[in-house]
Amino acid sequence: MIDSKALFNISYGIFLLGTAYDGKINASINNTCMQVAIDPVRVVLACRNDSYTCELLKKSKKYALSIFDEKVSFDTIRRFGFTSGRDTDKFEGIQYKTDMSGMPYIEENVCAVLGCTINEMKDLGSHMLFICNVDDARLLNGEKPLTYLYYQTKIKPSQAVTNTAKEISPSKNPIVEKPVGWRCSICGYTYYGEDLPADFLCPVCGNPAEDFYPIYKNE
Amino acid sequence: MIDSKALFNISYGIFLLGTAYDGKINASINNTCMQVAIDPVRVVLACRNDSYTCELLKKSKKYALSIFDEKVSFDTIRRFGFTSGRDTDKFEGIQYKTDMSGMPYIEENVCAVLGCTINEMKDLGSHMLFICNVDDARLLNGEKPLTYLYYQTKIKPSQAVTNTAKEISPSKNPIVEKPVGWRCSICGYTYYGEDLPADFLCPVCGNPAEDFYPIYKNE
Repeated sequence: MIDSKALFNISYGIFLLGTAYDGKINASINNTCMQVAIDPVRVVLACRNDSYTCELLKKSKKYALSIFDEKVSFDTIRRFGFTSGRDTDKFEGIQYKTDMSGMPYIEENVCAVLGCTINEMKDLGSHMLFICNVDDARLLNGEKPLTYLYYQTKIKPSQAVTNTAKEISPSKNPIVEKPVGWRCSICGYTYYGEDLPADFLCPVCGNPAEDFYPIYKNE
Repeated sequence: MIDSKALFNISYGIFLLGTAYDGKINASINNTCMQVAIDPVRVVLACRNDSYTCELLKKSKKYALSIFDEKVSFDTIRRFGFTSGRDTDKFEGIQYKTDMSGMPYIEENVCAVLGCTINEMKDLGSHMLFICNVDDARLLNGEKPLTYLYYQTKIKPSQAVTNTAKEISPSKNPIVEKPVGWRCSICGYTYYGEDLPADFLCPVCGNPAEDFYPIYKNE
């Protein structure tokens, strides 16, 4: 028997996962990266197979991981987590840099940045698992790294505010086009269906319904 | 350029990784497990290739992961992290249970327990990466899960106390046998050499020299 609430007790950081390929640049919120080897230093990263970031990652084979600190704003999480890069330019109006491989990262409220190369991919169905070499790792400030639990309890505002976020996120008119599903703003889990139940909890990371954004056909 | 201090900003939980094979039972401290897929629920786990736990895991292909909460005592971490199961029975005098696969776990100061089956192993040199199915996941209490940062700043006592721990940990007489190396009590990194520099920091997880225990020939 698997109780999802037990799985939510595994601790995670929260990162901005940025990649670029063929003139397209994108980044999304990710919470699944950890170091798994030394000599060379390697990390594994998991990414939802149906996300735009994953689509680009499979081609670019490179990414920059900005590790958020505890001072990150909800606005930053909302910008990168509550929309799809397929229909918005998430970096518009944002100060960002690119690393030596051309991968985008941000410095504001980010305690460290890693530059990684994907060596191997393993398709796990819902997610792609990437085994990666770390090419570059830089400390940016001395702040404490953000954990997923800290985000849920201290950064994320009340439901009323995040609902506002959801209302502004879709770039399409909900009257003429209804969503085919809803995607978790943090881990990328997709619920397929026009209406997301109000009491829905993400089965992967525990995010509540108000932190899902609508997705449309061909996304 | 890789600055190890940047890598220490990736957040991790702390777990008791318990396994059993052919009448032998063992558990060690681990900080590298995360969920990477759903349908079925899968986690990845990394383990030092030269550890006794890893040796058993490769044969048993099963383990129980006890997720520590913030109330765990340093004594528990010391018992399972500061010795090798090759020369001590870590469970002696400890209350533990076994799951339906016979894998050992503890309930005291543990917020959740996972029972996992290893589906695939990937040798990454220093570490073995295990891709695993979660067969069972149970919530034990409502306490907050322990993070590695919380352990380092709130649970671990001062250097003087942990040095005492190191003194009691080797089961062999240091006068007749000198160590061939030192192993990190948390992540299992091994420093090869008789003397560990006093200012040494674990290149994997940042643990200081006083949190390494000596290892001897044939361990």
